[in-house]
Order: sequence, then C-alpha cells, then structure tokens
Amino acid sequence: MAILEKTAMITNLAGRMVPEIVNGRSETPYMGVGKYRPAVPKASPPIRTAADYPANGDKRVPDLETALRKCGLHDGMVISSHHHLRDGDRVALMALQTAARMGIKDLMWFPSASFPSQSAALELMEAGVIDHIEGSMNGPLGDYCTQGKMRGMGVLRSHGGRWQAIQDGEVHIDIAVIAAPSADPFGNCDGSHGRSACGSLGFALADSIYADHVIVVTDNLVPFPCVPWQIQGNNVDYVVELDSIGDPAKIVSGTTLITRSPDRLRIAEVVACFLRDAGIMRDGFSLQAGSGGIALAFVSYLKQMMKQAGVKARFVRGGSTKYLVELLEEGLTDYILDGQTFDLDGVKSLAANPRHVATSPFTSYNYHGKGNFASMVDAVVLGATEVDTNFNANVVTHSDGRLLHGIGGWQNCLAARCTILAVPSFRDRIPVIVDDVTTLCGPGELIDVVATERGIAINPRRQDLIDAVRGAKLPIRPIGEIQKEVERICGGKPQRPKRSDRPVAIVKWVDGTVLDTVWQVT
Amino acid sequence: MAILEKTAMITNLAGRMVPEIVNGRSETPYMGVGKYRPAVPKASPPIRTAADYPANGDKRVPDLETALRKCGLHDGMVISSHHHLRDGDRVALMALQTAARMGIKDLMWFPSASFPSQSAALELMEAGVIDHIEGSMNGPLGDYCTQGKMRGMGVLRSHGGRWQAIQDGEVHIDIAVIAAPSADPFGNCDGSHGRSACGSLGFALADSIYADHVIVVTDNLVPFPCVPWQIQGNNVDYVVELDSIGDPAKIVSGTTLITRSPDRLRIAEVVACFLRDAGIMRDGFSLQAGSGGIALAFVSYLKQMMKQAGVKARFVRGGSTKYLVELLEEGLTDYILDGQTFDLDGVKSLAANPRHVATSPFTSYNYHGKGNFASMVDAVVLGATEVDTNFNANVVTHSDGRLLHGIGGWQNCLAARCTILAVPSFRDRIPVIVDDVTTLCGPGELIDVVATERGIAINPRRQDLIDAVRGAKLPIRPIGEIQKEVERICGGKPQRPKRSDRPVAIVKWVDGTVLDTVWQVT
Repeated sequence: MAILEKTAMITNLAGRMVPEIVNGRSETPYMGVGKYRPAVPKASPPIRTAADYPANGDKRVPDLETALRKCGLHDGMVISSHHHLRDGDRVALMALQTAARMGIKDLMWFPSASFPSQSAALELMEAGVIDHIEGSMNGPLGDYCTQGKMRGMGVLRSHGGRWQAIQDGEVHIDIAVIAAPSADPFGNCDGSHGRSACGSLGFALADSIYADHVIVVTDNLVPFPCVPWQIQGNNVDYVVELDSIGDPAKIVSGTTLITRSPDRLRIAEVVACFLRDAGIMRDGFSLQAGSGGIALAFVSYLKQMMKQAGVKARFVRGGSTKYLVELLEEGLTDYILDGQTFDLDGVKSLAANPRHVATSPFTSYNYHGKGNFASMVDAVVLGATEVDTNFNANVVTHSDGRLLHGIGGWQNCLAARCTILAVPSFRDRIPVIVDDVTTLCGPGELIDVVATERGIAINPRRQDLIDAVRGAKLPIRPIGEIQKEVERICGGKPQRPKRSDRPVAIVKWVDGTVLDTVWQVT
Repeated sequence: MAILEKTAMITNLAGRMVPEIVNGRSETPYMGVGKYRPAVPKASPPIRTAADYPANGDKRVPDLETALRKCGLHDGMVISSHHHLRDGDRVALMALQTAARMGIKDLMWFPSASFPSQSAALELMEAGVIDHIEGSMNGPLGDYCTQGKMRGMGVLRSHGGRWQAIQDGEVHIDIAVIAAPSADPFGNCDGSHGRSACGSLGFALADSIYADHVIVVTDNLVPFPCVPWQIQGNNVDYVVELDSIGDPAKIVSGTTLITRSPDRLRIAEVVACFLRDAGIMRDGFSLQAGSGGIALAFVSYLKQMMKQAGVKARFVRGGSTKYLVELLEEGLTDYILDGQTFDLDGVKSLAANPRHVATSPFTSYNYHGKGNFASMVDAVVLGATEVDTNFNANVVTHSDGRLLHGIGGWQNCLAARCTILAVPSFRDRIPVIVDDVTTLCGPGELIDVVATERGIAINPRRQDLIDAVRGAKLPIRPIGEIQKEVERICGGKPQRPKRSDRPVAIVKWVDGTVLDTVWQVT
C-alpha cells in the first residue's frame, strides 16, 4: 500500500485542510461538535461455534508463531495491541517481529498507543513488514511519520475514537494480540495481578470483542477461572505462555512524581483555587486529572482544600496514581473510575478495593454510544503542547511540526463540564499560546479555561464561569494579554513549522471525522 | 401474525418432525451435536451518538409510557424482559399492559422466562396485544400454548440459546425493558443491592447490547456511578423510576429447602456417592447443581464427603443458594460462578464476596462463542420430566403433552464432562423412564447418568464411567431394568399424550437449530 500523495484535500468546518481518502478509506471531514450522525450499523464479527474450540477450555499453543499461523496471518492484515504495559511492553513488538520472521509484509499495526521502547518497529517499516501505524505514536515513531518515511498514513485517534473506529467497522482487526498479566487457559485475562501487573486492560476490550482472531499472551497462567475477567475468554482463540510479557519497572513507572518547578506548582495551585472559587469543588462533585507533574500537584492542592471545606467527591477518574488512591482511602471520594493505571499504588488499589473500578473506553469515552462517562465529569485538568487565542488546542505535535505525542483520552475528556488546560506559558522559550495551533486536536468551544503561571484565561463562551469567579482572588486575565506578555519574554511569536504540503497523518475527532492533518516536516 | 398451521414439516437428525418455518422465519432442523456451523456474521445494532443523549447523563423520564413512546413503540414490535425477579417481577407485565393501554397490537414478548404471576399476559394474548411468546413459559402460559390458543408459535430456548438467537440476529429486539434493583440516572444497573435485590442481571445483558432501544426500570435510584454496572448505561436509552419493581418475597424464595422425601434424599446421596466413587470429586474439580430439593440435598451430601476426603473444588456454578455460599465461605471452593441467584444468602454473597462472581449467558452458555464455561464443568446434576432408555431427555412437557416448564440453562449444562439426571423413577404413578420422550430437549449422547431411588444407570456410551465405578458399592443397573421395575409398580407404561398434529411450539437446540416440536393437546 503506497501513500496517496495526490489525495484530494478538502477544507473542513474547522477550516483545516484534510484528505478525503486515507489509506484507501473514504473519510468524512469534521462537521462541528455533535454534528456528524452515523448512518450505518455496528461492525458484525463472524459467529463462531464452541464446536471448533476445545471442550476442556484449554486454548494454549506452544508459541506466538503457532498462534499467528493458526489465525491465518497473511500479508496486509491488521494486527492490534494495547499499551497498558506502556514503555515496558514486550508483546506487541514480539508479535510484529514474529510476523517478520514468517515473511509477512504490509501489515497495518493498530496499537492503542506506541512507545519509544518499540522503536524497532522502525526497522519493520523500513523492511516493509509494517506498512503503517494507526494509533498514537509517542517519540521516535511519530517523528519517523512526520519525516514522511511511513508508507501509509498515520491515523491518530483518542481512546474513545479507537473504540468508535472498531465498533463502527472503520478499522477491521484481523488479529488482536493481547498481553495479559494474568490469564487462564480459556483466555480470560486480568491486568491487576501477576508480576507484570498493569491494572486495567480496558484498551484491549474492543479488540477482543470485534477482532476476527484473538491471541492472549501471558507470563502468569492461572487455573480457570481467572477472576476478574477484564477480557473474556469467550472471545479468545489462542493462549500463549511467555517467560515475560514486559519489564515491570517500565510498566508502572514508580516515578510519577509531583513537579518541583515553582512555576508549575503555581499553575497547579491556581487550578485548584479556581475549582474551589468557581464552586465546582462541592460535595458530590467529580474530577479527572492525568499523570503529569502539574496534574499530580493539582490533586494534592485540591485534596487540602477538600479537607478544609469538608467536601467529598462522588468519583474521580484515572489514569490512577497514588494521589487518587489516597483520596479514595481517606474517604475523599466514593469511587475511582479507572481507565489506566499509572503506578503500583494504583495497581494494588484496583486489585483490592471494590470502589476502585476498572472502566473501558466504551463506558468512559466512546462517542458513538448512548452517552459516556466523560460528559458527566465536573472538571478535567489536561495538558497541551499549544493553545490558540480562540482556545483551540494541540496535543500531538510541537511547534516545529514534529509528531511526538499521542492523543490518549484527551479529546474525550473535553466533554467535561469544565475543561481546564494547565500549561506553562512557554517551554524552551517557545510560547505555548499561539495565534494558530500547528495541529488542531480540540475545538476551542470545548476548552473552558487555560491556566498558566501568568494567569488564568476563561473562554469568553463561558460567561457562567466568568460570573462564578467574579470577586475571587484569582489571576483572571484575557488570553491575548497572557500571550502578548509571553511573546515579549520569548522575543516574539513562535516560528511557523517548516512543513511540506504532503500529509503524513490525520487527527480524527471523537466521532470519526477528520479534524486536522499532520504534514511532513522539511 | 397468524399461526402457520400448514407449515411444512421435516424430520430432523434426531428423528423428530419439526416445522421449516416458524413465526415467518426459516428454521434449520437439528443436525446433530456440534454439526451446524453458522455462516453469517453477528447482528449489528444501530450506531448511536452521544450527541443525542443528555450530556449530564440523566436519562430519566416520568413513566414507562413516556419511555415506550420515546422508543417508538408500534404494532408488531419485539419487547424483551428478564426473569431475575422470577415470580415476583412486576415490570415485564407492566410494560406489556402499558403497551395495551397505548393501543398497541401484535407484540412478540421475548422474556428470558415467564412465570405464573404473569398470567395476566393471557388476557393480552386474547386481546391481540401479544401475538406470541418466544421464551420459557412456566405454568399457565405454557399450558395456554399447548391448548393451541396462542396466535404465533412458542419458541423455547435455553439461556445460552437465547443469547445465541439475539447475537446471531435470529431475534431482533426492538425494545428491552430491564428491571433493575439498583440503577443510576445514566442507566448503569446492578442486581445485588436494593430492596428488590435479585443478584445477577446476566439474562438481560444480551438485550442491553443488541436491542435497538433499552429502558431501565428501577425502584432504587442511586447517584452515578451505580457499581458494579452489570448492565452498562452506555447501552441504555431511558430510565424510569417506580415505587416497586417486584415483590421481594417472591424474588428470592427464601424457601429453597432440601427435600424431606426419603426417596429423593436417597437419590441425592447416591449421586454424591457416584461423584466420589467415580473419582470426579477430586481436588480442583468443578460442579453445577440447580435449586431443586434433590440438588440441594446432593450438595449437602457432597459437602460432607468433600470434607471427609479433604477435597476442595476450584469452582461451583450457580443458580446460587445458601448451600453453595456455605461451600465458598467454608473454603470448600475457590469460586462461585453465578448465573442467577436463588436465595437471600446468594444475593448477599454476590454483593459482598469478590469470589462470588456474576456470569452471563455469554460467558457460561453461548454455544456460538469461542467456547463457554459449561463444557469445563466436571459434573452437573439436573432434573428432567422424562428420560428414555437411550438417555434422551425432556424437561419442558409432561407425559400428557402439556408445556409447563422452561428450559433454563438445562440444555447448555449437558456440555459438562459428566451430566447426571437425578430424578425420581416415577411421579404421580407415572414412570419417568419412558420408551420415547414426549418432547426431546437433550440428546442422549450428552446425558451420562440417570440416578433414581431404584438405582443408577450409566449411559453405555460412557465406558470410562462404567469402568471408573466398577467395584464401588453403588446400585448400578441397566436403565431398561429400572424402567421395567417401575412399570410393574405403576401398572404399565405411561399413556401417550393425546395430541393433535398441529405444532404450537418448537424447542431449539443450543446452536439455534430445531430439535423438536410441541404439539397442541387435544
């Protein structure tokens, strides 16, 4: 499959030029928030029969190659993997390298995210084993894509968007390879026990339900039943035992630490103050914050304020960390609803505390369901690489145009009642507030507050928030004013990226439409 | 839809005459165990979008009529319900009666089972509101069907077969009405808490996933999130609050008592002895037994033997009762894998003990998955209304031809490694062992042992079992010998039912093929 360099481009509702055809598929340009309505039914996987599976439930085969061969692996197939083992994962790359040894070409790799430790996938792309990656590409893989070296086009989706794409039949997975910290011979999988425990396995759930073939790979085989079965063996074809599915030290970082930067601590504190003073931090409220240094510090500040005010949350959403676990254990929240688990405290809590509940992208984020959890969250605190003065934001590329980050659940979280970007006003002397984001990932109408160390800007569309904090001792400022101040400090606006007119990747919106294009960097 | 009295009949592989067309659908005759292979993909429900659902997650509407109207209820639709509230359920009938008040006709009611307390459905059938029922019919509703009064034809499916039929698109549910002992405004449901707690809600899971529209009805609304969410709000359209979804006294019987009949106690004991002496009761074994008096007594006997032998089960499958809960709490099993919960001890245990795990017909029974739990069970003890000398068995009709019982998980359980029918040798002076069963529900090749108070018959196909108990002090006898003895006592063979040649219902096999026909009784 060669990249379609001559793809016709069209301007979408956000004013961005996007390709009409991507990797051979017709695409729908972004039509605005909540405007696109799906008209087709859900994907319908083949019906299997128990007659074709061992009655004793033992689906083990000797190795990954046997499993892939039994799944009918051939050129051009779509192979999926999940990233709950993060930079410690060994299984996804092993599956792709096994395919390479089997002489397979032109695969589409469909990870829920890819990481620097999987850089050997670059060689597989050079060799034509992998045609292209659809999925978040962190670091070197994304960089390779923006260098224009990938044969097919990158497709970046949010966690919810990945579920939507699978569910809606936009991506048909031929073989899902699921790394499981615990599994039984039937294929039931659990992520919260075993030496490679990573907590939730939710990112692999859609794969297990919709893929034609499902291979479970584990380094901790337990007798049936493996409980809880986050992945159901009834969807699994083969089980492979390995000595190790990953490097535990890199699965959970153990180094998820609060920032020490005074500027970033300041941002964290003003965000917490904002939630308090705007009346969002009230009994029964809900909250989501990620695992970055600012977000962790924010949770820490907010916790103090919650205690002072005698306020308890109904639920907090993870990525879970020890800071969220402390909220749960100290009775400051009824529940953690956990999409992925970032540290060992999170893993232990998920395994042991029935109020620490594993979620999936279906429950949390899928826009093509009958609602989802994300829009019920009172406040979410997120990062961004860039934000413009209309509150449009970028989370995947740097100002030099290089694709270095995945979307994660970021786009999905924008549905929260109050979305706050907590960002330093500049990084490496490059302003974060720009006239026009390099890549549009989130429409400004969904971003309510931009909090920097130089002040808090409230989106003028949110008069209710502006009114709510009137009179509070908060550094509320127009976003343009913060921008100008930062430009003075940094010596002007950031340079525009030197990019070609050749699209190398697209950014999907949560409804599967094309929000923006990532261009080859020259 | 008028009953197709002139439907062409065909003889299936079991030698039973079955209709080729049922309620307008072409049917496949039974082809033998494990012979039919599905050739079509799974059903594909419509794709929804969060844009059409309230962002705050509040899907409540004032009443059931509003919900039904918003779901677009019209003549001829398929309305489904579940039976976890058993004879105490108020919701299914309320939904149907509401439809009647709205002037709706010709509905197909698709319950997971129907009960005597729902006899008012007879009036709705008389009035043409309900055209026919597809689902187990216990008592008066089944009797009505065999009297030939139902317009359409009854279709009896096992729990696994019901999942299969929905999943495979054989039955398309327009509106699922789900009674929930706890629910939040988003529609997440839990069955194990609340004043109408019934334990598992697994029978409603397929409905929630595949129905076009899903209404949750609860008498215990809790703030989001309702945990655990056995039914996911992401599949739910509307939530209705009622004062009461059922009569708790009839939801869990509280009277699930061990039989006092000396004959039946004797059966229970020999079954336990058989499992011990055949070497099935060994460390790590697994077991399923129902809620009847014999089954409960059997569990009690087996428990003593397990203690004596120092043997522990890996898992026991419910219908859970206090007898299974005792096994769990006394460390005699690692897990209860629970499909439905029969008494208050079961409900409390499911709510509190992480080793008491709710299952669904998908995990436990669906034959059109990549295997299921049923075939991994070492021994299952079941009842039957009749069994013939080739071990073919009947569980739905009496010898007079009347349809009075549902199939439940009975057919699915036949996949166990050792299937034991524990039955009295006669009831009301009518022999249970017959030359030819009135209705074939289970092929004899899957039934290994028939245990009566007059002896144990082992299926000659199971030479391994015959060998295993050689020398044991067990009353092993040929089935024909028991039959003859009982016929002497009862004064001969049972009378053949007086039946017409008009089919009124069919019995599906676990793969969706037609195993037998139920005929109008004259």
